[in-house]
Amino acid sequence: MSIINLDYLAANPLLPEVQEAMIDAIKKNYANPSSQHQLGDEAVAALQLAREQVARLINSPVEKEIVFTSSGTESVNHAVKGVAFANESKGKHIVTSNIEHNAVLRTLRALKMMDFKVTSVAVDDYGRVDPKDVAEAIRDDTILVTIMHSNNEIGTIQPIKEIAQITREKKVIFHSDAVDSVGVVPIDVQELGVDLLSFAANQFYGPSGVGGLYIRRGTRIWPLLDGGVQENNKRAGTENLIGIIGMGVAAQLAEREMEFRIKHVKKLKDRISEGLRARIEDIYINGHPELSLPNLVSVSVKYIEGEGIVLMLDEENIAVSTRSACAAGALQASHVLLSIGRDFADAQGTLVITFGRDTTEAEIDRFLDVLEEVVQTLRNMSPLYIKAKQEKADGAAAS
Amino acid sequence: MSIINLDYLAANPLLPEVQEAMIDAIKKNYANPSSQHQLGDEAVAALQLAREQVARLINSPVEKEIVFTSSGTESVNHAVKGVAFANESKGKHIVTSNIEHNAVLRTLRALKMMDFKVTSVAVDDYGRVDPKDVAEAIRDDTILVTIMHSNNEIGTIQPIKEIAQITREKKVIFHSDAVDSVGVVPIDVQELGVDLLSFAANQFYGPSGVGGLYIRRGTRIWPLLDGGVQENNKRAGTENLIGIIGMGVAAQLAEREMEFRIKHVKKLKDRISEGLRARIEDIYINGHPELSLPNLVSVSVKYIEGEGIVLMLDEENIAVSTRSACAAGALQASHVLLSIGRDFADAQGTLVITFGRDTTEAEIDRFLDVLEEVVQTLRNMSPLYIKAKQEKADGAAAS
Repeated sequence: MSIINLDYLAANPLLPEVQEAMIDAIKKNYANPSSQHQLGDEAVAALQLAREQVARLINSPVEKEIVFTSSGTESVNHAVKGVAFANESKGKHIVTSNIEHNAVLRTLRALKMMDFKVTSVAVDDYGRVDPKDVAEAIRDDTILVTIMHSNNEIGTIQPIKEIAQITREKKVIFHSDAVDSVGVVPIDVQELGVDLLSFAANQFYGPSGVGGLYIRRGTRIWPLLDGGVQENNKRAGTENLIGIIGMGVAAQLAEREMEFRIKHVKKLKDRISEGLRARIEDIYINGHPELSLPNLVSVSVKYIEGEGIVLMLDEENIAVSTRSACAAGALQASHVLLSIGRDFADAQGTLVITFGRDTTEAEIDRFLDVLEEVVQTLRNMSPLYIKAKQEKADGAAAS
Repeated sequence: MSIINLDYLAANPLLPEVQEAMIDAIKKNYANPSSQHQLGDEAVAALQLAREQVARLINSPVEKEIVFTSSGTESVNHAVKGVAFANESKGKHIVTSNIEHNAVLRTLRALKMMDFKVTSVAVDDYGRVDPKDVAEAIRDDTILVTIMHSNNEIGTIQPIKEIAQITREKKVIFHSDAVDSVGVVPIDVQELGVDLLSFAANQFYGPSGVGGLYIRRGTRIWPLLDGGVQENNKRAGTENLIGIIGMGVAAQLAEREMEFRIKHVKKLKDRISEGLRARIEDIYINGHPELSLPNLVSVSVKYIEGEGIVLMLDEENIAVSTRSACAAGALQASHVLLSIGRDFADAQGTLVITFGRDTTEAEIDRFLDVLEEVVQTLRNMSPLYIKAKQEKADGAAAS
């Protein structure tokens, strides 16, 4: 049974080259890179190669500035908690935005329980942060600004470079959660000017359970995992070498194919957006029309629930999501959609459609066909829809 | 070139069955277990199976009490920091032992910088903690006792069950770092009575970069990784499913083969110990003679340096270690060896010989042959040895 995957954000499929490299690593049966003898030599070389491949993808100047982690979530926890704990004596205030991923939100919630204070800046209707708001939120006791590069529910890309100019001027450390951007759109940490940047391999066809954290040299930060001296003393624990090797190959391919991939998904994005607008009335396409991820469409369908759409599409072997997979178990309206002005009901009626390198136009067309039917079926059962239709008819009759 | 691996502790080789399961998982290209659609169903089932396999290995009553992590180090950090932060309001005092792994030591060092207080109990000449010392160290503000199950440098196994009786009576949470025990010797968390237990797959022929943390239901603990709702809301981050699947298979095999494996390595351990005693004078075999890991021999060779021995053995294609691979970059005398009464010089002359399922008697014999020569060569260059020999000769002449 062939399933149309329009939930690439949950996890990209592994590329054949990545699979091959990982299988090869399993068969090679690498020793521990921290070994004192020659058994570890090949492992050291493999780790080094992967670090170079990943460094190149984000234009990190020195490979020593890349730390391998176990996920984007670990990278974010490391960055935010690590800066908070290391700089406590200078202050306990952190600035963030209203639309961060749960990895940032819940990390900040934990820090708040330890008496850290958080100012969260609002976003406009496209989900954009205004750098001026960040500048205003920074106080004398601010030690960290953490603003995501792109949003995982609506795709909007933030003015990171402008924010970095502010944080640099004010001597505040700046972390950006770029999990949904790295490997998808060009990211250059030197050009952006961030101090810390989180990313994950499964967003660019690498394995799940492997992430990276860029730490600009000289950034005052504690480890999250204390113990051995791995990762230049920045992250203890024996390395997931098989996963890291996969991440390295995925990074290399992402760099090489980026232009082609962006061109491909952008075309699909336009096809979806136009298709939705032409076929289904009363929808919102969320996020910024230009400054946005090319591989994501967020659509709020009025009068019905996203969960119902996902279930009915699933029966037709089409996989989409109402929001990030990480939050799937949390039964609340999306804070992101509420922040950009959707009301509670519309937020509940939202689909996040993500796609990739191997998604075809035929798959998109099939999705649009099925979605159109599914939406009509669900709306015909929706009291909200029936009422709205009635009101519209009454309005037309009255005029 | 065939290398004799006597550094199994740095990382066990992957078993063929584990390799096969991981390769199969790579080819299957699992989706995200948190997906809202059928693509995630198989991933959920695979994750569940692995959790059951691991739960069985340590006789955990409910699989929900197992949390998958990225390493033994993460498990330890999660346990120790998680309990510390969650119970701060009750007190900030922690009890540990003098011979813990760096994962515990450095985690406690970080907590000390946050005003936690630590009492470290001494060990006897075999490296054993006296449960009475733990009882005496517990104060009204003690929130956690963390004592390792077995030591990674000398192999000594601690009286965990007795300590657990004390902590339970005093209502203090008890964590045991069992990274070097789980999968090697029988571990039953219910019988031991611990609240938290850390372990890692690469100690029982599973992949590096995958660990587990047993959390007894009802234990007051914060997550280390905040974010999504994975792992029953105890550990955020998309799972390293390929590694977890490998860990599950490794756990199942460890459980099944444990008796045979122990019998095999015990025989090798005796062969090494007897060989060392018969062939090399002026050595100490460290650790408890009975209550000890069956797959480890620690030997301090007087008058010479362990690093030199490791280098010369490496040239003969024999891999051993002077201490845990995690600490290989840290140039200090082992705190473990100093704690059991070795002086600085003898601590520097220590080898940790670890072996496993596929180690043969012929390999041990070859190792002993080469070691005997290497030690003699190094001693002949050692001023300490020449002086000691002279004194011995003078003593004999004088008597």
